[in-house]
Amino acid sequence: MEHHYPSRLLEKAVGEFAKLPGVGRKTALRLVLHLLRQDVESVNAFAGSISKMRNEVKHCSKCHNISDTDICPICADMRRDSTVICVVENIQDVMAVENTQQFDGLYHVLGGVISPMDGIGPGDIEIESLVNRVSEGNIKEVILALSSTMEGDTTNFYIYRKLSSFNIELSVIARGISVGDELEYTDEVTLGRSISNRTPFDKK
Amino acid sequence: MEHHYPSRLLEKAVGEFAKLPGVGRKTALRLVLHLLRQDVESVNAFAGSISKMRNEVKHCSKCHNISDTDICPICADMRRDSTVICVVENIQDVMAVENTQQFDGLYHVLGGVISPMDGIGPGDIEIESLVNRVSEGNIKEVILALSSTMEGDTTNFYIYRKLSSFNIELSVIARGISVGDELEYTDEVTLGRSISNRTPFDKK
Repeated sequence: MEHHYPSRLLEKAVGEFAKLPGVGRKTALRLVLHLLRQDVESVNAFAGSISKMRNEVKHCSKCHNISDTDICPICADMRRDSTVICVVENIQDVMAVENTQQFDGLYHVLGGVISPMDGIGPGDIEIESLVNRVSEGNIKEVILALSSTMEGDTTNFYIYRKLSSFNIELSVIARGISVGDELEYTDEVTLGRSISNRTPFDKK
Repeated sequence: MEHHYPSRLLEKAVGEFAKLPGVGRKTALRLVLHLLRQDVESVNAFAGSISKMRNEVKHCSKCHNISDTDICPICADMRRDSTVICVVENIQDVMAVENTQQFDGLYHVLGGVISPMDGIGPGDIEIESLVNRVSEGNIKEVILALSSTMEGDTTNFYIYRKLSSFNIELSVIARGISVGDELEYTDEVTLGRSISNRTPFDKK
């Protein structure tokens, strides 16, 4: 449906919102009209926080997670175990693992996975910097925590080959039946992995 | 779920997005991370267009539609019939009627409907300014195009009483079976209105 916008300023703002993923022109208009009803200060705070974030946010020079400082709070935290690195695809994954409260090592954010279909090769993601971190010497274990997809598996294998010459433990997060899932409805590949990766009953 | 944001700047931007209607923290994070991947200029353009819109957009002094100028393009358009006013609740409704291309008169945007439940009385919406426009003399018809709800009907009735002393035609948009709808599934109130408001067959 073509729209007759009563204002070019409105039309421009709607157009900008509609560029966001999952936001259509109708939703964009609804959001813009909502902002139009808010006071000027709140809207300027909204817009300002976005500009400021984009202009000032950095990437941690060690783990490539986003950060307000050159070294992110996780890498800078001396209470964490700096001999263990958990390799993840992106920032959301760091947040997901942090939310489990089961990990107190450091991270390495690849910024993607190897995906020939999308033209993403090993050189496009942070693998070399991972190898450099390991080659510096005081890493005991690297945990590969990528998605259980073809691309994730390819990336795991590539990293395995790059790190196999180092004297470190290399592990992959467990794949198995989800907590709360019924056996009957679990796919056979997952169930197979669950059985072969079984753990002693009293472990947890 | 509590989030551990790696950056205060990111957290602030996510918080601002999450204030928008229908946007949860998870969606907000997705939108913010999308913006983080865009180049600085596009993100500044996005933020700038929102601030600019909120700071500079005006309301038409005649019809109260939003506008970039004191008089909106519709009110300023000499080819339109300035003797007919279509009364609508909000800006979206102006756009909806404009999209039908069936109306070439002017509008009057109330900015709401009378809703005692929400504490909105006649004095909170642009009814007085409508009466003033009509009292200036060269209006022939006022079309009430409000939603077919209790609040819409109350507002229609209130406006009807305020304008009944003027020598103008006062009409309400037709309520009836939607184009494309099957008779069988139309509610009886709508169907009843459809029958009593029947029009000659050759009319259109």
